[in-house]
Amino acid sequence: MTSYRRPLRWAMVGGGADAFIGAVHRHAAALDGRYQLVAGALSSTPERAKASGEALGLPEERNYGTWEELLSGEKAREDGAEIISIVTPNHLHFPVALLAVQAGFHVICDKPLVHTLAQARELEAAAAQVGKVFAVTYNYSGYPLIRQAREMVRGGQLGEIRKVIVEYHQGWLATKQGGKQAEWRTDPARSGPAGALGDIGTHAEQLVAYVTGLELDALAAELTRFVPGRALDDDASVLLRFRSGARGVLLASQIEIGRENDLRLSVFGTLGSLSWRQEQPNELLYDQLSAPRQVLTRGGPGLGEAAARATRLPAGHPEAFIEAFANIYSGVADDVTARESGEKPEPLYPTLKDGVQGVRFVERVLASSAAGGRWTAF
Amino acid sequence: MTSYRRPLRWAMVGGGADAFIGAVHRHAAALDGRYQLVAGALSSTPERAKASGEALGLPEERNYGTWEELLSGEKAREDGAEIISIVTPNHLHFPVALLAVQAGFHVICDKPLVHTLAQARELEAAAAQVGKVFAVTYNYSGYPLIRQAREMVRGGQLGEIRKVIVEYHQGWLATKQGGKQAEWRTDPARSGPAGALGDIGTHAEQLVAYVTGLELDALAAELTRFVPGRALDDDASVLLRFRSGARGVLLASQIEIGRENDLRLSVFGTLGSLSWRQEQPNELLYDQLSAPRQVLTRGGPGLGEAAARATRLPAGHPEAFIEAFANIYSGVADDVTARESGEKPEPLYPTLKDGVQGVRFVERVLASSAAGGRWTAF
Amino acid sequence: MTSYRRPLRWAMVGGGADAFIGAVHRHAAALDGRYQLVAGALSSTPERAKASGEALGLPEERNYGTWEELLSGEKAREDGAEIISIVTPNHLHFPVALLAVQAGFHVICDKPLVHTLAQARELEAAAAQVGKVFAVTYNYSGYPLIRQAREMVRGGQLGEIRKVIVEYHQGWLATKQGGKQAEWRTDPARSGPAGALGDIGTHAEQLVAYVTGLELDALAAELTRFVPGRALDDDASVLLRFRSGARGVLLASQIEIGRENDLRLSVFGTLGSLSWRQEQPNELLYDQLSAPRQVLTRGGPGLGEAAARATRLPAGHPEAFIEAFANIYSGVADDVTARESGEKPEPLYPTLKDGVQGVRFVERVLASSAAGGRWTAF
Amino acid sequence: MTSYRRPLRWAMVGGGADAFIGAVHRHAAALDGRYQLVAGALSSTPERAKASGEALGLPEERNYGTWEELLSGEKAREDGAEIISIVTPNHLHFPVALLAVQAGFHVICDKPLVHTLAQARELEAAAAQVGKVFAVTYNYSGYPLIRQAREMVRGGQLGEIRKVIVEYHQGWLATKQGGKQAEWRTDPARSGPAGALGDIGTHAEQLVAYVTGLELDALAAELTRFVPGRALDDDASVLLRFRSGARGVLLASQIEIGRENDLRLSVFGTLGSLSWRQEQPNELLYDQLSAPRQVLTRGGPGLGEAAARATRLPAGHPEAFIEAFANIYSGVADDVTARESGEKPEPLYPTLKDGVQGVRFVERVLASSAAGGRWTAF
Repeated sequence: MTSYRRPLRWAMVGGGADAFIGAVHRHAAALDGRYQLVAGALSSTPERAKASGEALGLPEERNYGTWEELLSGEKAREDGAEIISIVTPNHLHFPVALLAVQAGFHVICDKPLVHTLAQARELEAAAAQVGKVFAVTYNYSGYPLIRQAREMVRGGQLGEIRKVIVEYHQGWLATKQGGKQAEWRTDPARSGPAGALGDIGTHAEQLVAYVTGLELDALAAELTRFVPGRALDDDASVLLRFRSGARGVLLASQIEIGRENDLRLSVFGTLGSLSWRQEQPNELLYDQLSAPRQVLTRGGPGLGEAAARATRLPAGHPEAFIEAFANIYSGVADDVTARESGEKPEPLYPTLKDGVQGVRFVERVLASSAAGGRWTAF
Repeated sequence: MTSYRRPLRWAMVGGGADAFIGAVHRHAAALDGRYQLVAGALSSTPERAKASGEALGLPEERNYGTWEELLSGEKAREDGAEIISIVTPNHLHFPVALLAVQAGFHVICDKPLVHTLAQARELEAAAAQVGKVFAVTYNYSGYPLIRQAREMVRGGQLGEIRKVIVEYHQGWLATKQGGKQAEWRTDPARSGPAGALGDIGTHAEQLVAYVTGLELDALAAELTRFVPGRALDDDASVLLRFRSGARGVLLASQIEIGRENDLRLSVFGTLGSLSWRQEQPNELLYDQLSAPRQVLTRGGPGLGEAAARATRLPAGHPEAFIEAFANIYSGVADDVTARESGEKPEPLYPTLKDGVQGVRFVERVLASSAAGGRWTAF
Repeated sequence: MTSYRRPLRWAMVGGGADAFIGAVHRHAAALDGRYQLVAGALSSTPERAKASGEALGLPEERNYGTWEELLSGEKAREDGAEIISIVTPNHLHFPVALLAVQAGFHVICDKPLVHTLAQARELEAAAAQVGKVFAVTYNYSGYPLIRQAREMVRGGQLGEIRKVIVEYHQGWLATKQGGKQAEWRTDPARSGPAGALGDIGTHAEQLVAYVTGLELDALAAELTRFVPGRALDDDASVLLRFRSGARGVLLASQIEIGRENDLRLSVFGTLGSLSWRQEQPNELLYDQLSAPRQVLTRGGPGLGEAAARATRLPAGHPEAFIEAFANIYSGVADDVTARESGEKPEPLYPTLKDGVQGVRFVERVLASSAAGGRWTAF
Repeated sequence: MTSYRRPLRWAMVGGGADAFIGAVHRHAAALDGRYQLVAGALSSTPERAKASGEALGLPEERNYGTWEELLSGEKAREDGAEIISIVTPNHLHFPVALLAVQAGFHVICDKPLVHTLAQARELEAAAAQVGKVFAVTYNYSGYPLIRQAREMVRGGQLGEIRKVIVEYHQGWLATKQGGKQAEWRTDPARSGPAGALGDIGTHAEQLVAYVTGLELDALAAELTRFVPGRALDDDASVLLRFRSGARGVLLASQIEIGRENDLRLSVFGTLGSLSWRQEQPNELLYDQLSAPRQVLTRGGPGLGEAAARATRLPAGHPEAFIEAFANIYSGVADDVTARESGEKPEPLYPTLKDGVQGVRFVERVLASSAAGGRWTAF
């Protein structure tokens, strides 16, 4: 890796002791040594927030009880946090992000970005005025072989793209159980208007856009609530039409018993195809017309620049989820550093634009579903 | 294996030298020694038909130039064929099958059965009168682990079925090339009103019905012709609603470069799920709530009666496509034998009913597609 | 397939109703229609032999009680069997084969060929005098992708061969159970001096020789009897040195719980490598220096002549164990036909030479093991 | 994770900018926030050492030119490093480790530990006197499913262990190329008396001992130098006998083109077996007598305590090499913390004892090889 400036001073909103994703953010931020956690408002009650902060070794005066205190407190300090990660249940993304942006912090926010397109646009407008980094943790974009796929597709190696299949299969919500994670994710007040669609369907939508650059034209959706009593969809099947004429299928489900975190992407063009599975992320299958399949491996022969820059280890030494997540974090750190030097690199990490697009996607899918599955313009 | 009567006297219509599927039928019929090829009208011109018959060693007087001659000739002989396989391009299925049924032959017919639902019903009516065997070669039903899946699903081991995903991915029609096979399959006059939908989508539809017994209620379809100048669909995505409330996704494509004959089935219930791939047919993945995945293997521990009866070799000695196809042929031979003894076993091979259902499926998918993808009652 | 002469008149010694391998031979012989079973002495007692023959529909006068009767009876008939398959427990291979050869029959014999090298040589001498076909059913040589591997290795595509790893993992003899198969295979009187070594180790040895042509120079062996009370080895690990300087590892075990019929071959050269697994026989992994792995598939792009000739179905329509076995049978039929026309093609099926080599291999491994695992000249 | 003390003050000897393994140590140490890099002597020349330290942001006065300076400098400081990682080519392990131990530092040292058994014992004696932590980075011990395998084997779930197969396949040294990594690893002066045997064979040996606890009794080895001009072995095949009567096979090679970092372990007992592959580390195959295979997944159902404690993410969110490595680092940090509280937990990370055993293994293999592959007492 290249040399770099001192670690960014980093604060977290949410992500306390019992939040799976909070620990992921900390591992990801820690991996390359580019972030130093200096403050937190780590949970939804001051008591639990402070207990979590103490366990993480936060200094007492920067271990805040509420996110409002954190933002004002850190803004006031000369050595205050430069960047805020928002790792709360979805309903808090909007208020926290808006205030953080207005206060001039760089922001890293979980997805789905916010509950409504109106919120998304307000946030976008606010962000446009301050010119700070705003990243959205569509973390699968951080996998080296996803970067490779993007480079190949956009470089024309597959020819014109005809069809995309993206699938996100999970089974952990096949019953009412599921612990704290399940609880808020199936509660409209905290999760927003979409269940599986918002939680994992948006990942799938973003992955397609990230890799292919295809622009949606219309969609037809079938949302289902399989588990009795559930308030939100736990299964989504969406047919896609893109402006280029390409077609797509997006499947997202959380009731498929036996599926763990089985995100898959296949892209088919006139000259070849690519296939990738998140659970085996170090392999990318590459098929060309009338040629044997090639298995591209992370760190192995035949890869391009983008994958190389996102890779830490030699081939055969597998990298995985945290490393991909860390690539988002390190990309943000690179960008902050570059901006300080007056540069404006094209970010490879997902930004507010991806976040807004995801909210729009949720809205259009819900509209199609509400209309009985009718094809609906994007 | 059990003891059995003398081989059935068997004739083929179609399936000459250069037809891939003709050789498959002969291998399948030969495997268990239950059929003896006694006559043929093997190609669409008398000249090529006779050349093929000669190469196969047919006696000259039973090596017919046309299928009409074959049916009348064999009917007239005391030692005439008992059973006719129809292995022609699709447009000939109807006239040949109808006449064969009327003439009192047992029939084995390729799929899709016929071009229109009206034809299908006429055939059904004719068959009802004569009471002979009429099998349709939805050959994937012959795989032992598909029989196992059927037994498990129908026996309730997965609980109530919530969702089915069936996919049939091929890439051999990604360009205009493809040889003789491609030529007739993309010609509406010979292939019928559907392309990929008819050729492989019907296999997918039948597999779901065969394994789950779920009855279709409605569907919404997206058919695409990706290859310029092609007259029929080469890609189909269909969302399914079943009467039970279950949901389904059916994908069939012939333009996915790198996919060979990648038929996959996943069935998800309230208690567990099953997953199977035709290209690795000796494994069936079985997931139960909160338990490690089990890998059921053909011939291995944990299998039921249905799989055992369809199995020839011990575990680890793989069986494949021809053996599955042969299970259809041997099932028909068993049935003919049983009927001669006055029994009427429930056939495990696909019958005219499956064939009619497939034609209906094609019609409803085309109707939905013609209506811009609208949900359409089945 | 090409046109061919009338089916060979074929008789079986052994292979009655409850013998797994007998049915395999019949399926294999039937698949391409090149053999017609005309006679049999199918079991070790006249009673059971005749019951089996009846079940298979043999005419009474050719349904023999003993193999001696079969050989003399068939020799005496004008329409007598032309070719004899020997499908008995190992100890009968020698007497039956010797007499069959002397009587002028073509012979197909199971492996391991005989119990001792002296027997092997006597058989070889007898066969040399009559000039008939003598095939040994090292059936894994019949897989299309093994033929492909042989063509690539011998054509120099891997460069100079450095190392070979051949493994044959089974678990069905991990306990004393195992049924009739287990019983005779663990009995020295019927199985010969070797257990797992003879049953599957010889397959492994032959596969290496078949694919690479490497000649053994020396070996060091560790034979183990893991199951208490067993009289023969159930596990063998053998290090190999070849004359060319190449090295090898051969593993064969029947006590590895969970392994079904897991035969694997990897060949490493100075330019590339190949890897193949019998349980997934339609894939051959091909690695070249500094290039992405290629997955060669049976029927797929990039294959040579040898694989094409051994292939019946298009890519993605899997072929398996029986088809590979049938390639041995059809190769023999081709050879018999060619000899009748005065040709002498180089056979691709395994011959007496392979059989003798296998017996020698067993003897040298036993010698090394008896000497405490010492390196022993081949 | 539990709460913990302040990060350990940590220094590195070796592991500068262009050393693959140095970055791995830093990622691993960073991941859980338990280490703070305070000092380094990062390369073999003062100039390059300091350039690397600068790039990593080390304060100038603790960015040492030589390891001797580092040890004395840090020892002299009140806030000096508490723990030293030794990440140099092998020949420096001994002098650095000995002095570090004598100076009272905790030590984390790469493997193979040292060049000779005499050195290993001297180090052991020195360490015994000071009672600090001495870990050896047999990092594969850190994988959660290896911990699971250990727990299952030692808990008797496989019954009595009969056989172990451990394989470590690489291809990156198939030619003379290979960059800086290849250069020192094939140089006896820096790598020690063994090539592939020392570099990866020792990992394989340790993995067997770690999982099974089996004690070696004797071995027979075949070492080969395939690449012309190479001074050390690049391929090792070793047959193993354990005191319990179990048998083993250990394969290690660096000339197998196409193999990346393909470490595999299979353990076979009287009741069941386990199989694991490093390149797919989130799956552990578990076979029991007469039952379908189970696929245990990291984070999934059916796992025990040891795996749970080594796991950061839910099932399906893959963890990999760095996380396993980090488990060694965090285990050491736990141990240091525990010792400060007067506890003496049984460490799960590999210790000096493993390191000494590895050196002994190398010596015995070399002895057997020098004796022409003779069985040699351990």
